[in-house]
Amino acid sequence: MPLAPELDRFLADNDARIHDELFEFLRIPSVSARSEHRQDTVRAAEWLAARMRDVGLTTEVVPTDGHPIVIGEWRKAGDGAPTVLIYGHYDVQPAEPLELWESPPFEPTVRHGRIYARGAVDDKGQLYLHVKALEAHLRTRGTLPINVVVLAEGEEEIGSPNLANFVETQAKRLGCDAVVISDSSMFAPGLPSILSSLRGLTYLQIDVQGAAVDLHSGSYGGAVINPATALARIIATFHDEHLRVAIPGFYDKVREWTPDARKRIQALPFDEGKFRDEVGAPSLGGEDGQSTLERIWTRPTCEINGLLSGYTGEGAKTVLPAAAMAKVSCRLVPDQDPDDIATLVRAHVERVAPPGVTVTIRALHGGRPWRADLQGPLYDAARRALTAAFGKEPVIVGEGGSIPVVGDFERILGAPVLLVGFGLPGENAHAPNEWMSEENFVKGTRAIAALWDEMAVPRNPS
Amino acid sequence: MPLAPELDRFLADNDARIHDELFEFLRIPSVSARSEHRQDTVRAAEWLAARMRDVGLTTEVVPTDGHPIVIGEWRKAGDGAPTVLIYGHYDVQPAEPLELWESPPFEPTVRHGRIYARGAVDDKGQLYLHVKALEAHLRTRGTLPINVVVLAEGEEEIGSPNLANFVETQAKRLGCDAVVISDSSMFAPGLPSILSSLRGLTYLQIDVQGAAVDLHSGSYGGAVINPATALARIIATFHDEHLRVAIPGFYDKVREWTPDARKRIQALPFDEGKFRDEVGAPSLGGEDGQSTLERIWTRPTCEINGLLSGYTGEGAKTVLPAAAMAKVSCRLVPDQDPDDIATLVRAHVERVAPPGVTVTIRALHGGRPWRADLQGPLYDAARRALTAAFGKEPVIVGEGGSIPVVGDFERILGAPVLLVGFGLPGENAHAPNEWMSEENFVKGTRAIAALWDEMAVPRNPS
Repeated sequence: MPLAPELDRFLADNDARIHDELFEFLRIPSVSARSEHRQDTVRAAEWLAARMRDVGLTTEVVPTDGHPIVIGEWRKAGDGAPTVLIYGHYDVQPAEPLELWESPPFEPTVRHGRIYARGAVDDKGQLYLHVKALEAHLRTRGTLPINVVVLAEGEEEIGSPNLANFVETQAKRLGCDAVVISDSSMFAPGLPSILSSLRGLTYLQIDVQGAAVDLHSGSYGGAVINPATALARIIATFHDEHLRVAIPGFYDKVREWTPDARKRIQALPFDEGKFRDEVGAPSLGGEDGQSTLERIWTRPTCEINGLLSGYTGEGAKTVLPAAAMAKVSCRLVPDQDPDDIATLVRAHVERVAPPGVTVTIRALHGGRPWRADLQGPLYDAARRALTAAFGKEPVIVGEGGSIPVVGDFERILGAPVLLVGFGLPGENAHAPNEWMSEENFVKGTRAIAALWDEMAVPRNPS
Repeated sequence: MPLAPELDRFLADNDARIHDELFEFLRIPSVSARSEHRQDTVRAAEWLAARMRDVGLTTEVVPTDGHPIVIGEWRKAGDGAPTVLIYGHYDVQPAEPLELWESPPFEPTVRHGRIYARGAVDDKGQLYLHVKALEAHLRTRGTLPINVVVLAEGEEEIGSPNLANFVETQAKRLGCDAVVISDSSMFAPGLPSILSSLRGLTYLQIDVQGAAVDLHSGSYGGAVINPATALARIIATFHDEHLRVAIPGFYDKVREWTPDARKRIQALPFDEGKFRDEVGAPSLGGEDGQSTLERIWTRPTCEINGLLSGYTGEGAKTVLPAAAMAKVSCRLVPDQDPDDIATLVRAHVERVAPPGVTVTIRALHGGRPWRADLQGPLYDAARRALTAAFGKEPVIVGEGGSIPVVGDFERILGAPVLLVGFGLPGENAHAPNEWMSEENFVKGTRAIAALWDEMAVPRNPS
């Protein structure tokens, strides 16, 4: 069923205004990881609530111990209609390193059909297209075929520390028949995609302390353990020569993908050369015996996210550093548990740490991996809506990133989760020059507007 | 022979003024490694030249491709008198990390008999006491028993890139019977020390480049080589399990110390527990089979001076870094050659670097190691002058740090070099809270004033 003509026309007529509103949203530097942006996250939350009120939703900005949660509700479709929880996040990653941005991260700029800005695709653009799909229904028909709760949080990029508790305590209010989330990417331009798996996450910081202060590397070097060297030696034990994670017990709970699931991945139109060119590395590489997509979707990792020790400025400083720090995160696959993995990493690091330094390991945050079989009316409706908006059947894909709350929603609310995203490969989420395709923003809005009609239509068995 | 009474009286009477002048010198942030301090190094050079003119020297501030060289000359002692070249440096290490200083690095502050400031001991304090020793002679007697050339450079902390060339081209003007340098430390409080060896240096920067930009560690992690992990794996190959440097060929040219020299080291009043307490590390550690002093004085090292990759700020950022950087320096002992060692490190790193990243190695600077047998009238005079000033016979010590120009002076000028320093263990050279003992500044000035008289005295064979 194509998108209803009045919805289509409304979205076309209001295209410029909708873009302007999105740009306003993107200009707010709502960086959740940085305390200096605390006022900006509040501003983004209030701005979003105001826009939802504009289109007819009842809203609430709920304070948390961290950044506020925004709720928008419209429940006039009646008891017979399904209730959908739309989840997204209004916070963004830090924009650093700023010098690598071609246009300022918080001044959205369109180049070659792409909206460049921090948060353009992750997740402000994708969250906002949901608000606009609701607006199309409410402004043209005065009603919606579904009951809706929008839940937008401001702490996704720092691991959603307050969300699970909020969902638990508000489980009744958030009760629903389906959860819909757009915070992911399509497999390729023009190819709508439904996500069937997410990796989980365990994020740790390792601090290695040697001497009390930085020492002269000549006057002390050789007689005092160098914490930077010690840290490097610890990190070097994280993988074996086949680039498998060598932390004992790491793979114990990994559920292998079925031959069918691996075959489905291999059938996707994946261009490894193009992927490598986008990445820009001399060559791709990873765990032996796995293809690139399998490495990203089906295999766990142990990555260094940051390193800092000693003198890192211009020129040469002959310092024997007092301390060295690494940020380390493991991406997890079913049925690895984030807390178990943190325990394994901690035990391993403590076992391999050399004498002469003090090693401290802090778990910063974590989230469970997720997999779904994509059976049932929610997924059928999504397939039809995406086919209508993009003129192509959606493919089933995996995702290497983590949306920890997905597992929480399933567990607490008992509702199936639909992950349908409109990002694209190479979109630089979490990197300089993040962008979202303008075309995907427009078609994504239409797909979501169509989805609500599809969910309300009783289908004859065919 | 005790210090001549008129010199002693002059230094006592002028003590407060001399301190004030030193403090003026220390207030100039002449950080040679940082381009933003370019005006400060010029200011320090001109200030020093002006002070030498005040005491009767002819001065010149010689521009170089980097920071200027200051020359001060007094040649009225006649052809029969020895000519001494006094070398020191007016540049200082960067003061970072600033937050660890208990008083501002460029506002000298006296606490518990110590002058705290960046450069207090390395090397402004030690250079300036030479100027004041010359002043004592010239102001009380109107003459000196020696001809003097003071050579103060502004690039010691960045590897003296322009000094060797200057010494070569000015070899005739700098021609001398002895070189005297105070840029080192005494073995213990009250124990004057003459240095018999210095380690050399090869300082390199390793840059590992993976992807073109930082990537999302979820969406790409596992399929793209992580440059931080690659760098850690490279660094982990630098040492074996006995903490010997494992770079092939590294020890090939190491000249072993004689059993006598090792015995002399073992006889020194070294308190390992106190040293460890000063260092503040959980325990000391280094190459198997070597004592702490041997590790620092007689053995080469390969140290990490700095590490930087990815996200190092507050909180968690799930980034797969595009690049990782390490600053690496090897301290060398005779007869290791800095260029040879740079070549060995480069070859080793290229051999162990994994595919999937591009590794670049740049040599930042280097200097030769040095050892002397300390025989001859220069060293005899020094022994007598130090005994007079400190009331104790000097000990012969090694030094783990590097003063690359020492070897250049010997080679180019053909003159013996006397290294007599007045720093103390724990003085925090190159670290926050650098200090110089006030007592050593005062006694050091007297020892050097006495040295010029001792060098001029013809000795009867005893």
